[in-house]
Order: sequence, then structure tokens, then C-alpha cells
Amino acid sequence: MHEGSTLLGRFFKVREATQSLVQPLALEDMVVQTMAAVSPPKWHLAHTTWFFETFILQQKKGYRLFEPEFRYLFNSYYEGVGPYFPKNKRGTLSRPLVSEVMAYRAYVEDAIKRFAGEEDAASLELGIQHEQQHQELLLTDILHIFSKNPLTPVYKEACLPRANEPPLLSMLPFEGGVRSVGYAGKGFAFDNEQPCHEVLLAPYRLSSRLVSAGEYLAFMEDGAYDDPLLWLSDGWDWLKKTGVRAPLYWARLPEGGYEVMTLHGRVQLDLHRPVCHVNYYEADAFARWMGKRLPTEFEWEVAAAELHPSGHFMEEGVYVPFASAASKEELGQAFGDCWEWTSSPYVPYPRFRPFSGAAGEYNGKFMVNQLVLKGGSLGTPKDHIRASYRNFFPAETCWQFSGIRLADEGAAS
Amino acid sequence: MHEGSTLLGRFFKVREATQSLVQPLALEDMVVQTMAAVSPPKWHLAHTTWFFETFILQQKKGYRLFEPEFRYLFNSYYEGVGPYFPKNKRGTLSRPLVSEVMAYRAYVEDAIKRFAGEEDAASLELGIQHEQQHQELLLTDILHIFSKNPLTPVYKEACLPRANEPPLLSMLPFEGGVRSVGYAGKGFAFDNEQPCHEVLLAPYRLSSRLVSAGEYLAFMEDGAYDDPLLWLSDGWDWLKKTGVRAPLYWARLPEGGYEVMTLHGRVQLDLHRPVCHVNYYEADAFARWMGKRLPTEFEWEVAAAELHPSGHFMEEGVYVPFASAASKEELGQAFGDCWEWTSSPYVPYPRFRPFSGAAGEYNGKFMVNQLVLKGGSLGTPKDHIRASYRNFFPAETCWQFSGIRLADEGAAS
Amino acid sequence: MHEGSTLLGRFFKVREATQSLVQPLALEDMVVQTMAAVSPPKWHLAHTTWFFETFILQQKKGYRLFEPEFRYLFNSYYEGVGPYFPKNKRGTLSRPLVSEVMAYRAYVEDAIKRFAGEEDAASLELGIQHEQQHQELLLTDILHIFSKNPLTPVYKEACLPRANEPPLLSMLPFEGGVRSVGYAGKGFAFDNEQPCHEVLLAPYRLSSRLVSAGEYLAFMEDGAYDDPLLWLSDGWDWLKKTGVRAPLYWARLPEGGYEVMTLHGRVQLDLHRPVCHVNYYEADAFARWMGKRLPTEFEWEVAAAELHPSGHFMEEGVYVPFASAASKEELGQAFGDCWEWTSSPYVPYPRFRPFSGAAGEYNGKFMVNQLVLKGGSLGTPKDHIRASYRNFFPAETCWQFSGIRLADEGAAS
Amino acid sequence: MHEGSTLLGRFFKVREATQSLVQPLALEDMVVQTMAAVSPPKWHLAHTTWFFETFILQQKKGYRLFEPEFRYLFNSYYEGVGPYFPKNKRGTLSRPLVSEVMAYRAYVEDAIKRFAGEEDAASLELGIQHEQQHQELLLTDILHIFSKNPLTPVYKEACLPRANEPPLLSMLPFEGGVRSVGYAGKGFAFDNEQPCHEVLLAPYRLSSRLVSAGEYLAFMEDGAYDDPLLWLSDGWDWLKKTGVRAPLYWARLPEGGYEVMTLHGRVQLDLHRPVCHVNYYEADAFARWMGKRLPTEFEWEVAAAELHPSGHFMEEGVYVPFASAASKEELGQAFGDCWEWTSSPYVPYPRFRPFSGAAGEYNGKFMVNQLVLKGGSLGTPKDHIRASYRNFFPAETCWQFSGIRLADEGAAS
Repeated sequence: MHEGSTLLGRFFKVREATQSLVQPLALEDMVVQTMAAVSPPKWHLAHTTWFFETFILQQKKGYRLFEPEFRYLFNSYYEGVGPYFPKNKRGTLSRPLVSEVMAYRAYVEDAIKRFAGEEDAASLELGIQHEQQHQELLLTDILHIFSKNPLTPVYKEACLPRANEPPLLSMLPFEGGVRSVGYAGKGFAFDNEQPCHEVLLAPYRLSSRLVSAGEYLAFMEDGAYDDPLLWLSDGWDWLKKTGVRAPLYWARLPEGGYEVMTLHGRVQLDLHRPVCHVNYYEADAFARWMGKRLPTEFEWEVAAAELHPSGHFMEEGVYVPFASAASKEELGQAFGDCWEWTSSPYVPYPRFRPFSGAAGEYNGKFMVNQLVLKGGSLGTPKDHIRASYRNFFPAETCWQFSGIRLADEGAAS
Repeated sequence: MHEGSTLLGRFFKVREATQSLVQPLALEDMVVQTMAAVSPPKWHLAHTTWFFETFILQQKKGYRLFEPEFRYLFNSYYEGVGPYFPKNKRGTLSRPLVSEVMAYRAYVEDAIKRFAGEEDAASLELGIQHEQQHQELLLTDILHIFSKNPLTPVYKEACLPRANEPPLLSMLPFEGGVRSVGYAGKGFAFDNEQPCHEVLLAPYRLSSRLVSAGEYLAFMEDGAYDDPLLWLSDGWDWLKKTGVRAPLYWARLPEGGYEVMTLHGRVQLDLHRPVCHVNYYEADAFARWMGKRLPTEFEWEVAAAELHPSGHFMEEGVYVPFASAASKEELGQAFGDCWEWTSSPYVPYPRFRPFSGAAGEYNGKFMVNQLVLKGGSLGTPKDHIRASYRNFFPAETCWQFSGIRLADEGAAS
Repeated sequence: MHEGSTLLGRFFKVREATQSLVQPLALEDMVVQTMAAVSPPKWHLAHTTWFFETFILQQKKGYRLFEPEFRYLFNSYYEGVGPYFPKNKRGTLSRPLVSEVMAYRAYVEDAIKRFAGEEDAASLELGIQHEQQHQELLLTDILHIFSKNPLTPVYKEACLPRANEPPLLSMLPFEGGVRSVGYAGKGFAFDNEQPCHEVLLAPYRLSSRLVSAGEYLAFMEDGAYDDPLLWLSDGWDWLKKTGVRAPLYWARLPEGGYEVMTLHGRVQLDLHRPVCHVNYYEADAFARWMGKRLPTEFEWEVAAAELHPSGHFMEEGVYVPFASAASKEELGQAFGDCWEWTSSPYVPYPRFRPFSGAAGEYNGKFMVNQLVLKGGSLGTPKDHIRASYRNFFPAETCWQFSGIRLADEGAAS
Repeated sequence: MHEGSTLLGRFFKVREATQSLVQPLALEDMVVQTMAAVSPPKWHLAHTTWFFETFILQQKKGYRLFEPEFRYLFNSYYEGVGPYFPKNKRGTLSRPLVSEVMAYRAYVEDAIKRFAGEEDAASLELGIQHEQQHQELLLTDILHIFSKNPLTPVYKEACLPRANEPPLLSMLPFEGGVRSVGYAGKGFAFDNEQPCHEVLLAPYRLSSRLVSAGEYLAFMEDGAYDDPLLWLSDGWDWLKKTGVRAPLYWARLPEGGYEVMTLHGRVQLDLHRPVCHVNYYEADAFARWMGKRLPTEFEWEVAAAELHPSGHFMEEGVYVPFASAASKEELGQAFGDCWEWTSSPYVPYPRFRPFSGAAGEYNGKFMVNQLVLKGGSLGTPKDHIRASYRNFFPAETCWQFSGIRLADEGAAS
């Protein structure tokens, strides 16, 4: 496959983009892990490389593994490939060194250029998409790592302007009926977005924008974290077990008010930006407090597709009516737009078929005990933002860029 | 409310039925708890009584609580009512004595007769339905308690006939289309079965009967418990954590073959009866091994309603095509019919409204991280078996009477 | 062995005494277990019986086990005998029934009469001593079981007189020198009290009585539970983990003051009686707060032996200078005398030889990570109170009848 | 204090020695933590610096803290100084960077030169001794970190000669009597070695050398890890919980035999060298298997002092009769001499007085639930090897350089 080809060109561009994300980090930042769900940045760099090696190169005659032990160290969860190093111990590994991981990246990139042929187009595309998913995870993990450090390091210096007051939150009506969902285009889509199929929706309404930090603060100040009747039972148990009293990264100041930990360091809470880093329990409780509910994934998708027929509504530069008031210029700004929790458990679509081969474990085996999130965040690569994209996390997940959009059934109509 | 009324008559009948279920138990059996999900039989007797006291009597002028501390001790999970004793410690309570619990039952029954009026009909009905649900739990919990005792006590002596070879498992086709689901009748239904609404189904097939123990054994003997590719990721983690190698209550004999713990004591495994006490992960893995899947709750419900237009298909005495080969004469026989795992996470129906008042916590707050089961078991009171009934448990649940029905999309048609 | 013999006579007397201890209990009280260290009363009754069966009867030709499964169920920790049921699950066993345990007791007692000969004298003596140790454990466990029940049951109704103000706590001097410790008499002693050997003591002083509840309250009111510098590191960790703020069984009243849970139910705290149910960390911290320390086991033993040359100083009816002010008429009174924590880790005496055979596991294998307690409590059978007796528990143990005596080096003399 | 003074000179020498120990490490190795008991090398470098800053500089007028947050981050456990970062999370801290820690070291060293006066001699000495203790911990922690990495890094390349067969293990007799123990010299000693006092010993024997790996292998091959009767009860629980089957760092080869992880990487097990990295339970079980026991700390100390009247028996270059067969040229060789487990729980000496001030927490608060080890290892700074030195660790500790010397009572003499 020659570099001039679009696919290979995108491969190198994505690989480079990943490395540019860790450029602001010190070597020490690359190694640590602050909770089981977080991976050290170094691990992301190596695992995305392992993905290309495992799903493309390993089968090639003449290809020699960079280091056989990496098969084990950088396999995330592919049982079909073999055993893997425990996820919650990744931060105990000082070796391979960062320089060795970088050499691994270069070695595999070079090999892709030499070995990958037309027959690898699908795998190469999957590897590119996979690496882009890890680009967002790199940012969420770096933020978590920095947030847990009493020295509160800064990923990227920036002076964030205060946001303007957001427009009134209004409820936009959508028609029901039999509607098509799932990916129907000609580009790449994950197995979990397919097959395209029909669902029946009752008429519904969605909020014109995400819930703001100020609105969420009103919920807190109304005693929501002390009122079990607002919470799902598992959510209330989670509150009691963790003692959580505010969204992750909010810190109450002695003099009143809140600071928030961001990729730009600790900043004053901006009440006009969307609330971020809430988990499903918090999003669900907030909606109940508002007398509303969270949208289903299909309500969200149908509305998004309608408003952005291209299916890639971010391309237009606006995100209306899903857009927040925040400008999107800066990656990783204090409050970005957020993934939006839906009330839909993550289950397979009718006639779902996993990717073939070992990649079949990519999505399918996680289809229980998780919820679907739709949309994207400012950490999401642009071409991952499409109406059919299904992000998913367990209900207690806070460290993703996740926020709240509301839904209801509309007037008595 | 006078006893002659149908409702009050049913109240006493159900109360009596509960007590007849514990009649075979020794006093010691009433007290113990073998895991957090199990409650001591004594606790079920008291909690169902507490339910009537709390939701009907407590509001009545002139009613005096039997024992104020019972508000705390026998509240299960109603935050709106007040704090409650920790669920996993119920087996540490030697007091109140069984005789005191029985006196509590009599006291409340008498008070219902004296205090309950027409305005309590809905609450009384709910309390009756609630107590019937605990009748099944009594049986599942007694079985668990006895199964963990090396002396393997017998709940009810019985000599079970060997079942005949089950009929061939065939796949019955059902049409798709926009179909109505949820309870639409005039009798009682839980809030979670409502409101009745429409769903869109693609054509599908359901297996003509439950999976048999013999079929499940073939899955085991094919190495299924050692093959991660058959399992959901959470299911594989559950297997590794617990070391499970067979359905709960199966015990491998030194000479080969299996015995099963039942309410009739340990008996030889009957390969012709439905496999029971499998959890969602096992049901899902079995279906995958078969090249099939589990049905959704709506596929199940539509098929059931079609075959049994009354909505109470057990009334006819047969359970076709959902029936197993087992006779139903005996409550708690070795292998009864089973609740059937569906692939549907337990979520609210569109426009779901919880019961009003404190009973609003009955179902709604559990609508996350659980799966819907349909049908009923031989431990289920007959009038709880209806197409719209939604039972629900977390995926790892084994100690309920739960089995497997298969689904697929049918031929290329 | 005929009943007339002293030994057999004592056997029956001790067996009867055990049963009289559970006489005030309801059947339900016999079954439950409130923490891993506590055993259900029923279990004590069966285990002490198992001891005679295992160490005497099982070897006898013609003896038939009462129930073979009891070998497993009522073995406490004797690896040499075989596997044993998990200690922390004893409260999950509803069977054998209490009536069956009583039949087991009668069966074994009868068999002892028929089978035991002169050659069994040592084992019979050990079994008697063992059962007496469990008599105290029965009381400590019943108290714990009742204390955890919101209905606060009463083991024995009694109206406790308020104690008189205790005499001034003074420090009594003892000479140092080479002194003999360990059991040197002709009666029974445990292997861990032997062999008698010499130790070198520096001159020391012991407090004239146990620390009173009032004195302990002063320690609490001085902020001791918030001052890490008073505590051993493990003790401070224990405080932070458990949130303990007072001795076990003390409950702060809304109106101020404390109630205490006792075998006579909840009673007002009597400041004049010895503080009880403190663990080693609390005893050690109190002593540090007083500018003193806990005695070593040898300092305690030498002083006791000196004051009570008989070695059985309780026989005199007084406990001077070790006596508290409390009268001893009532077993299980609100505050009894207490076992006294020493600063001595529980280690073997020089040339220690465990009992022979399977009984070798009786004491020896526990000689690490525990502390020695000396003296006895009002729950201790009288003939177990001797200067050389070594009780032992881990440092965090609170549910025993354990109190505080102080020591120091005396004046600059 | 001018640099020419002996004390300040030693300060700089020790500081330099610490840094030379991390010289072979990569930056990534400095950051990670493989279990709660292990600290990242970076942390050791910072904490030893914090010690000088906290106990000397902080009080000085004109001294400015390098970074106020370090008070919290690098406090190990001194409650009197203030709160401290959780020990088990040290490996989650990417900041401060290694370069910043090095700057911290230089800053504090410079300040010591400028601020420390004669009045600080005791604190400076303590800080030096403290840092030397951490030099050994650096080596034990690096070994643990490398041992857990599948890439098995090497701390120091070396080609170890095979050891000669060790001399026969004989038992050397020592007289009993009243003997003096504890530090009586004029140099530095820790508070826990004092005061010097007399103890009474019965005659005893100690083994002429440490137990070899070959002897320990015989114990393993005799089924010791499967025989509960050889183990303390807590030790048997530890075995069952962990599944341990051999000393830490031993790895069974598929073709038979063992490799051992060392600071020189993985090497073949040398049966002639002392067994190392056994915990107290293993040492105790081995001694029992041999029909012997472990020595008390005083038996060990009296014997050592007798053989090496200087009290610094390593100075002579030989370690007879305590010496192993291993040469001592290389620091961190595959099997060094080892700290020797004693049967003595770590308790205060009579009339023990902790260091004054905040340093009072140095040793005293750990005097429960730990055992004393005597001697030293090849990781121990030479001037820390003295007869009175008391090292201490909990019984389950494996990752220290810890081995076995035997004791008994000798012939019937």
C-alpha cells in the first residue's frame, strides 16, 4: 500500500495526531494510572500500535514481532488473541520505556507501509478508528491523572473566556412514527451501529441545549444529593458508598463557590457552560428533579439525523439545536460539549453481526450493564461525530466528558 | 371492609397460603440467611405484614403500631418511609421470635378487617400482589438455605417420576409489525407493565420449548465454561471470579453424572426437564453456542398473547408452545417450568408513571442494570402468570427458577 | 469409667452447666451469628460435644458416630482431624436443629459413660476444660448477638445496684529479680502455661484496681479518640476504618451520658465499675494517656502468685489487690471484672511442647499476632482463674470481657 | 555547621550514596509502585529529603519551604507533622517530576549546610540513619518493581559465580544466664534498641549458618506447602489466600528446577546460597519441619555480641558463625546474606522512651503485630549492622532480604 493512497495517508495522520496529544506530557505522566478504568498514556500509545500489529502484521510472512512479550502486555481484552496483562496493574509497569514504545510505534508504522495491501483496507480502517477512540481516552485519562495530583498540573495553558449566558432551555418537538436508525451510509461504521433498522417512536421533545452547570448547581442546592427519592436505587447506593456530593472535578471553595479541574488546570466554575463529568445516575436524577427524563438513543438519533441530514452534523461547524453555547475552537477547553447520556441500555441491534475474526470482541461482548451515550465531546475526533455512533459506559462512569440533555413527551396533545 | 367482599376474601386466602408455605419448616429454618440476596423466611412473613401496616393501617386514626421498631426492621427498601435495617444482616436477627412474627401477622390481619375501607382497595390489592411475589421468593430462598447445608434438608418429600423425552426443539415463526404490548386489561397490573403501547417487531422465531438439562449438559461437555468467546465480558469475569462450572445446585458425582439440589432434596439430574437456575450470562452463552439468541421481552410477550388471548395462558392448564414437558402438579418439583431470561434490560415503558405515594419505589427505582424475565415458574402464583408481567433480576442471578428459551430471525425468508 | 469417679462426675457437672447457660435463650437465639468471631450458641453446644467424640470416642471399637457429617460441621480448626465448615458461615446453618444437637449431647454423654476408661483421663480432662472455655464464649457471643438487635433482648433480668465509688487507684510496688512463672502445680494446666521457667523482672508497680468507666470517660472527653499520638499505628488505622468513638456496647444518649448493653439489657453506664469491652489498642492508648503502660504477662503473674500463693486467688472470694469494687454475686452482671490486657504478645514459653496428637493444634498454632490477657471475668468458670492461665486475642478484639490494669516502673527509687 | 565536620561530611556522603543507588534506573522506573508496601524510588528520594526539611530546616528562621505541598506528599506517617498522602497511592503521582525531586534534594542539602548548627547534631544524625534505612528499602522496592514486570529488567548486570557447597549446618551452643542486651555504646542507636537491660536466658544453640536454598527446597519437596500441621494458623490462612508455593521470586521452570528474580535479573537458583525472601510463616514452618525453632531476638543478640565484642561484627569482614558462604563483594548479588527472622514480637524494651518530639513516631507506634529481624543483608549499609539493631516487619512480609537461622535447646545436657 503506497503512502499516497488516502487510507495510508489517513493512517499516518492519525498516528501523528495521537503523538501530538502526548507532546505536552512529561515522561513521568506517561506511566501512571489513577484508577482501574484509566490507562497510562504510554499504554494507549502502545496498545493502538499493538492493534495494527495483531490484526494486520502478525499474519504477514516475513514480519517479525517487535517484542513477543508485547502480545501479552498490550492486549486489552481480546481473549481470542491470548491472555492479557491485568487492566488495573498497567500503572505498575515501568518498562517498556517511553522511548521503546515510540520505537515500537515507528517500527509498526514502517511495517504497515511495507506489508499492508489492499486486502488489509478494512483492518487498517478499523485500526485508524480504534486509535481515534483512544485519542479521546488519552485526554480523559490525562485529566483524571492530573486531577488526582495535589500539585494540579496543567495539560495545556489557556485563558478561557467566560461563556455568555446560555439561551433559554426550551423543548423542541419531534414527530413519532416508524423511523430508520443505525448507520446506512457508505463510509466506515462500527458493527454496533448496524444493521440499519426501523423503530417505532411516539412523539417526543428534546431540550434545545445541554443542561448548564448553573442549572445543575440549582439541583444540588435544592438538596438533591440528600434526597433518595430522586435517585435510582443503584445510584443511591453509589452515593452512599462514595460520598459524592458534586460532579467529578468540582471542588467546593472554603469561601463558597466551586472550582473545576480541567485540562487547563483548576479554574473557576463557569455556570454558563454545560455541566460535564456527571454519571448516568446523576443525569437521571437531574432529569427526574426537572420532571423530565433522558432521551432514548433512538429519539436522539432520529432528531440528530433530521437536523443534519449529512449524518455528520458537526461538519457544519454548528451543533444546533444540540449545540452548547461554548465555542469549539480549543480542544480540551474547560467545559466542552459533552457526550449525552441516554436512557438506552447498550444492547445489540436486531440481526447484529459482530466484526469477523478476533475483532468480533471489539464491541459485542460489552452489551450488558452499560448505557449508550450519543453525540461527542470536544475530545472526540471530528469524523467520529455522527448520528448513529454509539458510545457506551457503565452507569457509575464519571471521568468521561459526559453531560445531560433532557426529553419529555410534550404537551397533553 | 367486610370479609365477604372478594378483595378481603382474597386477602385472607393469600395470607393463609403464605403461612402454609412455611409449614414444613422448622423454627431454625425461619431465621437464617445464606447470602445477601436471600432473606430469612421469618423476614418474608414479617415484611409482607409490614407492607399492609405501612401502606394502609398506619394512616388510620386509632391504629396502634404492633411494635414501633418493626418500621425499621421490616422496611425492605422504601426510603420514603424511613431508614431500614441492612439487607445483608437480616440473618443476624434472632428477635422478634417466630411466634412474635405470627402474632404480628394476626394483629395486622385483624386490623385490616377493622380499619380498611373502600378507599384502601388499591393498596390492599397491591399488598396482596406483593405478598404473592414473596411467596415465590420464600421458595427460592428456602431452596438456597437448604442447598448450602451439608445435611441437605428436604422441604417436601416427593418421589419425582422421570420425565419423558422432550419433544424436538423447533423454532416457531411469528410475524413482525407494529404490535401492542403492556397490560391493557381491567384487572390488576404493576406499574412497570404499563402503559400499554406499541412496538415495532421484525419477524422472529421462538423455540417451541425451554432448553432441557440434557441440551445444557451438551454445552458444558463441549467446553463452554472454558471458552471466553462464548461469553459476555462481564459473564466471563463472573466465571473467573466464582469458579462456576455448572448451573447452581448441580453437583458432579464422583462416579460421573450430576445430582441436583431441589425442594425435594438431592435428586439425580433429569436430562429431560428444563435446565433451571442459570443466570443471564449462562443463558446468553448457551444461545450463542447454539447460533441463536435470547428473545426480547416484546417478542416473548407478543407471542404469548397471541397464543393465549386471555392473557392468562396458564389458566388453560397448558403452556403451549411455551410449556415444558414437565407436569405441573407439584409445587416446587425438582425442575419446574422456569422464568425465561430475555435480552431486554429492565427499563421503563414510554410514559411510565410509578405508583403514587411511597409505593412509587416499588418498581421504578430498580430500572437499571437488570434484565427482564418473562413467564413464570412452578413457584409463581397462578394469577401472576400473564403475558405482560415483567420479572427482573441482575445478570448474575442464579437462585431464581430461571431457564432458557431461544430466538432467532428465522430463515432467509 | 463409672460415674462415681471424680472426673466423670465433673464431666457431667460441666455439661449440665453449659446447658443451663442457654436455658434463658429462645430457639431462634441459638442459631444466629453476628460476626465471624461469634458462633451461634447451638454451635458451641455441638462443638464441645464433637470434641469428646473426636478425641475420645471415635477411637473406641464399637462406637458409632452420631452423624458422620458432624465431623465436618463441628470441627473448629483442627486440620489434623480433617476439613471444617467455614467459621464465618456458621450462622447460615439451620440444621442440625437444636433438638438434634441436644440429642447429640445426650448420645455422646452416654457413650462417654460406657466407653471412656482410665486411659482417657487426660483427654476427658482436656474436654472438660475446653467446654468451660466455651462457657465464657457462650456468654460473650450471646451478648454480642443481643447487642446487635434493635429490640435489645435481655439475657437475664436483674436490677443492678449502683456501685460504690471505687477506692483511689494507687500503684502497688513489686520487687524484681529472677522469678518463676508458668504452671508448677499438680492439677490441670494448658500446654501454653508450661513449662514452668524463670524470668528476670525489673522492679515494677501495678495499679491497685482496674480502670473505671469514669476514668475511661475522662480519657474520651479529653479528645483521645481524635489524637493519633496516643495510639499505636495499627490502632489508629482501626479507629479510622471502624469509626469507633467509645468502648463496644456504649451508646451515647441524645440527652447526654451513656447507656451500655449488658446481659441484663441496656442499662445506664455506671462510672464506678471497671471499663469493659475495650480492645488492646484502647487499653494501650489509655495507659499512654495516663503516662503509664500495660503490665507484661509476667509482671502480672508474679504479682498475682505472690498475693495468692494458692494460685487460685479467686477462691478467697476477694480479688485484692486485683479486685474491682464490683460484687461478684451475679454472673454476667452489667460490668463484671474483666480479663486484663497485657503488653505481652502470645508466644510459646521456652521448651514449649504442644499437647500430643491432634490436640497439639489446641493452642500452639495461634502463637502469633495475638496478645495475652490475664485474670478472668465474671464469665470465667472459677477453676479457670489462676495466675498462670493465658487467655489470648488479637489486638482489635472488643467483644470479650476485657479491661485495663496499669503498670509503671515506679518512682526514681 | 561547616562541611569539614565529620557529621556534615557523612551527611553528604550518605546523600550521594542514595543517588548512586538510583543511577542505574530509567526515569520510568522511578515512578511506579507495585504494591502498597513498596514506594516508588522517586518517593524515597523525596521523603528522605523531607525528613531533613521537617525535623531541622522548617524551624529555622529564614528558611523557605521548597514547595509547601511536599509537607503532605512526602510525609510518610508522622501524624504529629500533619496529614499525609495515602501510602498505597504513591505510584499514581507523576508529579513532582524526578528532576524536581532532584532539585528539592539539592535545595535542602544546600540549606542544611547554611542553617544547621551544633544544636541539630542529633536530628542530623537521625536523618542520616533514616536515609540509610531507605537505601535498603530502595533496593528491595526496585527488586519488587522489576520482578512484577514481564520484561524482567536488570538493575545491575553481573555474572554471579556459583557458590561452593556450604559447610555442614551445625548447632553452636551458648550459655544461658543473666545477660545484657540493647545498645550500650557511645555511638548512635535507635530508640527501640534502648535502654540496655538484662534478660535471663536458658542455654541454647544457634545454627552455624543460614538455611540454604537447597535445604529449603527439600522442605518444599517434602510437601510442606500442603501440610497444615507445619504452619501457624495465620500462616496457613495466608497460604490459602495467596496460593503461595515457594519463596517470593522463585519461578518454577517448565523443565524442572527454579529460576530466581534478583537485582541481576532472572538467574538459576543456586542451592548453595542462603534461602532469601521467605516470610515469618515460612521461616517458622521450616524450623518446625526441622524439629527446631527460630531464635529469640535476645538469643541472637547475645550470641552475636559474644562473637563480635565490638558490636559491629561485620567490620571484621567475616560473619562467623553467622556468615553465609556467599562472598559479600557485590551489593545486591543474587542471594545476599539475609536479615534473620526471630521469634520475638516487636515490643518496647523495659523503660523504653521514644525519641522526643515528632520523631517519637519513628519506631514506637509500630510495636504491635510485627516480628523482630536481626543481622542485616547485603543491602544494609555496613554501619547499620550491629548486634543490638532491631529490624521489624509483619509476619507475611516476603519482599525484604529475609532468611532463616535455626535454634534449639541443645542436648539433654
